[in-house]
Amino acid sequence: MFRKFAVLAVAALAMPSFAGSVETAAQLRDKALTDTTAWNIVETLTSEVGPRPIGSASYARSRDWAVAKLKALGFTNVHVETFPEPAWIRGAESAEIVGAHPQKLAMLGLGFSVPTPKGGIEAPVVVFGSYAEMLAQPPGSLTGKIVLVNQPMTRTQDGTGYGSAVEARNGDSEAAKRGAVAYLVRSISTSTNRSPHTGWTGGPGPHIPCAALGVPDADMVAALARHETVRIRLKLQSTVDQKAVAFDVSGEIKGREKPDEIVVIGGHLDSWDPGTGAIDDAAGLAITTAAAKLIGDLPAHPRRTIRVVWWGSEENGGSSEAYAKAHAGEHIVIAGESDLGADHAYKVALPQGMPGLDEVMAPLKTIVSPEPPHHGGSDIAGLQEAGVPILAVSEDASRYFDYHHSADDTLAVVDPDGLKQNVAVWASLVYLVADSDIDFHKAPAK
Amino acid sequence: MFRKFAVLAVAALAMPSFAGSVETAAQLRDKALTDTTAWNIVETLTSEVGPRPIGSASYARSRDWAVAKLKALGFTNVHVETFPEPAWIRGAESAEIVGAHPQKLAMLGLGFSVPTPKGGIEAPVVVFGSYAEMLAQPPGSLTGKIVLVNQPMTRTQDGTGYGSAVEARNGDSEAAKRGAVAYLVRSISTSTNRSPHTGWTGGPGPHIPCAALGVPDADMVAALARHETVRIRLKLQSTVDQKAVAFDVSGEIKGREKPDEIVVIGGHLDSWDPGTGAIDDAAGLAITTAAAKLIGDLPAHPRRTIRVVWWGSEENGGSSEAYAKAHAGEHIVIAGESDLGADHAYKVALPQGMPGLDEVMAPLKTIVSPEPPHHGGSDIAGLQEAGVPILAVSEDASRYFDYHHSADDTLAVVDPDGLKQNVAVWASLVYLVADSDIDFHKAPAK
Repeated sequence: MFRKFAVLAVAALAMPSFAGSVETAAQLRDKALTDTTAWNIVETLTSEVGPRPIGSASYARSRDWAVAKLKALGFTNVHVETFPEPAWIRGAESAEIVGAHPQKLAMLGLGFSVPTPKGGIEAPVVVFGSYAEMLAQPPGSLTGKIVLVNQPMTRTQDGTGYGSAVEARNGDSEAAKRGAVAYLVRSISTSTNRSPHTGWTGGPGPHIPCAALGVPDADMVAALARHETVRIRLKLQSTVDQKAVAFDVSGEIKGREKPDEIVVIGGHLDSWDPGTGAIDDAAGLAITTAAAKLIGDLPAHPRRTIRVVWWGSEENGGSSEAYAKAHAGEHIVIAGESDLGADHAYKVALPQGMPGLDEVMAPLKTIVSPEPPHHGGSDIAGLQEAGVPILAVSEDASRYFDYHHSADDTLAVVDPDGLKQNVAVWASLVYLVADSDIDFHKAPAK
Repeated sequence: MFRKFAVLAVAALAMPSFAGSVETAAQLRDKALTDTTAWNIVETLTSEVGPRPIGSASYARSRDWAVAKLKALGFTNVHVETFPEPAWIRGAESAEIVGAHPQKLAMLGLGFSVPTPKGGIEAPVVVFGSYAEMLAQPPGSLTGKIVLVNQPMTRTQDGTGYGSAVEARNGDSEAAKRGAVAYLVRSISTSTNRSPHTGWTGGPGPHIPCAALGVPDADMVAALARHETVRIRLKLQSTVDQKAVAFDVSGEIKGREKPDEIVVIGGHLDSWDPGTGAIDDAAGLAITTAAAKLIGDLPAHPRRTIRVVWWGSEENGGSSEAYAKAHAGEHIVIAGESDLGADHAYKVALPQGMPGLDEVMAPLKTIVSPEPPHHGGSDIAGLQEAGVPILAVSEDASRYFDYHHSADDTLAVVDPDGLKQNVAVWASLVYLVADSDIDFHKAPAK
């Protein structure tokens, strides 16, 4: 554990006026490394509530669970903010190879896919090894076909392999334009496991039914298709509830001097359905909440308020705009979200160049990036667009996409030591920011 | 690839009479390291046939597939031997936590479990952290309960962690004796993946319905049960076909001098149903078959006959006795089975002490064990009991039980280089044995 945390050396270089805060940040760090609050949150959320897709009974249960948990942890001003959010409801679904070599395929419908007719769609498959290869096909060339894009994802420490791979998950409209009747995509995954990885699909239209195949299943179809015509029967009986309601839940550690200056941190409460939403994103809300709770347990609160938000519509993308709109009038000092698992945190990024920042950030100087963050989490994108400064903690995402959006996203893949180390980084960082006078809105233009 | 194979140095120490054979063994080894026969067998079997549990349509298809494949590979005397073998047929099945914290559990019924009543069984759960802990409970103490044995499995290179863990999978009768109404076991697995691992269950009776939970699911039930009474509803609608028929398929490379002296090698064709039976055991039959094919392609066959057998009832345990009985009158020189995946082979074991053996085995001396094998594969246990000498190739099984009997057992977890290296070891070993005069039946008593 301490090996992993060696990067976070607390320096004794801070200005005299901030020396006490530096000392407190060091104490928070040390306490976090033996604190089990984050683990307990992930364990109880995943076992007492389970998967939390919008529109499900467990999502509804997560609301009361969240309020009770935040209150029990000592947060004040705990409340729920609701907003309309259409829900995609998974129904019966299947995919199978038919013909001489019949076989069931491991699959999951993609969120907001249109359904198939009740009897399904059966058609020959055309396999492309990359999304670009499919885009290179002329209009009409895929008429009557089921398209499979079998593009592998690259494993990276910073998770950027996802950005380039996930484009293929949104490809149904491009396939439809070329005449395809259904769209299959190799799971956006770095694993060899068979569990498919779902996710939102969002082509601009026209829409055709779309689903993710397990990585081995996509390779199997591709292998067969090299020697024979493969026919697949796809069934998707999903529905959409246009009147569903989503919610964010939040609580605060009130600032002792400037309670109206707010540091917003959090993770997201909603999740996909095949796993229990442990790394995506019980871990993120647990890390930020445990960090805030450690700060709240101090003899004196920091000068500014810390608000923990459990956003309730990350996977559907609704919280970002709703939260920014509802909180447009507030003085949000800075905002950050943890939503890339709980492995070793190795970098902190926040706006640079403000007077006094180096002194405040001295305890974290070995991991503070010289670059400001390019983006925060999805749920703070709306705040960011509205001009709110953003902080970001980068955790090692090398194995995150082995599990993300699949049945394998459970407590079993959360590393307890990594979780604690993330809490230590967040607790130190948030305390330093909340106890300082730095105005992150005044970052000089680059 | 060559790093892995460095242990298989071909020595120039063999007796002059066997020097040509040693040279041939070296050529076979080198050819195997670039040969794709084994990979092609695994890929085509898993994609063209898929999972192959006895009693399934795909098992029936695997019979013709196997005959055609062995003929296409150049084997002679290709034929099918049938024997009666009751089949356990998986039906609709589910397990879920009911009550205040409802959640579906990832589960698979265990082979030959008795079914539940149609509406299922609902009862409170008692969790034991080890099988020994359950056995320590007095009779009647588990009356009306569903038992969960949540004993982790130890990862080992030689796979021996399985032997000590799998006892728990056969625990239904012990639970029933203590009054339990159903029996759940943590998947016998070294992975954190959610996919459950099935397998045969074989308590002596009385029997109660039994199923494996995913590793994370077993831990989740255990975590909940520390704070509350957990009730589970289990449904298992399996059936048994008492009149099913199993089969072994075999083919030969006829010996040039002593065709009636037979070296029997192979793997098993049947598999469990959640994956595609790639490492268990398409890989094993592919390794031994590719090795035999390389030998068959030589300008001259070895002196003895090599017979490749694709046993058809390993998971149900029927091939062992059936094969031994049907071939009792033959002169089987030695028998070996590959059934522990396709990672790096690191040890060869065969009877020791016969005159001339050291010379024959000189090319493999760095990996030949000084100890004879304790057991071969399950399918040659009957031969072994009947006195047939056994050879064994040990492959690295460190990750084998991450996938074994689960949906994750697919081509995606077969390492192509490991597969080739196994073929290289088997090809050299089998050629040396088949071209020699060593009588393994005459091993001196220890």
